[in-house]
Amino acid sequence: MSDPDTFKLKSIGVIHTPFKVQEGTPIQPVYAEGTTGAVEVFGPYRASLADLAGFERIWLVYWFDRAKANQPKVVPFRDTVPRGLFATRAPSRPNPIGLSPVRLLSVDELHGILRVADLDILDGTPLLDIKPYVPSFDSFPSAAAGWIDRLAVDREKADRRFEKDSDS
Amino acid sequence: MSDPDTFKLKSIGVIHTPFKVQEGTPIQPVYAEGTTGAVEVFGPYRASLADLAGFERIWLVYWFDRAKANQPKVVPFRDTVPRGLFATRAPSRPNPIGLSPVRLLSVDELHGILRVADLDILDGTPLLDIKPYVPSFDSFPSAAAGWIDRLAVDREKADRRFEKDSDS
Repeated sequence: MSDPDTFKLKSIGVIHTPFKVQEGTPIQPVYAEGTTGAVEVFGPYRASLADLAGFERIWLVYWFDRAKANQPKVVPFRDTVPRGLFATRAPSRPNPIGLSPVRLLSVDELHGILRVADLDILDGTPLLDIKPYVPSFDSFPSAAAGWIDRLAVDREKADRRFEKDSDS
Repeated sequence: MSDPDTFKLKSIGVIHTPFKVQEGTPIQPVYAEGTTGAVEVFGPYRASLADLAGFERIWLVYWFDRAKANQPKVVPFRDTVPRGLFATRAPSRPNPIGLSPVRLLSVDELHGILRVADLDILDGTPLLDIKPYVPSFDSFPSAAAGWIDRLAVDREKADRRFEKDSDS
């Protein structure tokens, strides 16, 4: 294989949440019900918020800016043994892109503010993209989920295992 | 706001599909049932494929390398009027990150090859990440979906509207 290509991303906004540190942050939106916050979208991108009101959920795509570097295997929050990273949602990924289906409460296109709920994201996280959640595209309620279907630990909040060392 | 931060991504693999051009490519995995292909994962990332077998679907996160530059509003494939880009899944995004929940058929960890089905992706697309599809995290079957719930056009395949000009 040739050398991997590289691509450049830019932050298009910032996600504001109640969570300042990884310890205690919900590990998925389903474990964060009722947690509210805001997505601030920078000026050049605000016109693209049109027509977003009416979607009950949106995908936030963001940069795991405070995660430890890529680890090929990790002990996930909901298990006791190491698993291949791509079989987990851990943040220590080769490209640390996060993905959360959060609940959309309101859209202020003029000021670039979305009120959102069910947040599993650290305060100040750089936003990369917003996509509408579309059940007919995204919802597969009965898809088998490997080790997660037989999970060993019923944990809903993070600890510090994926925290960048410089944060300690 | 301060100047937006920038981040660097690297390709961790390549997605092989039957689709050489945008025209005729399915616009979502649900419209690509039975289409098969392969995800080639580069050497350094193959150990991270452990434990992926057993997941019926995976999220492929990839780079829309042949999409037109960001457009604030687009006429989506399934509508007749312009919509805010973030209310659509169009590829011409500020950060052209694609997201597809494809069906996982088999995993060859040693050679870094996943056989996959239900592909809505162009052949040769750079891979950025793989995440397991987890219904308890990702599936919201009854979430309202704004304009898509009232869609005007029942289209399932792409045309050339989001194609980079240099491709013509």
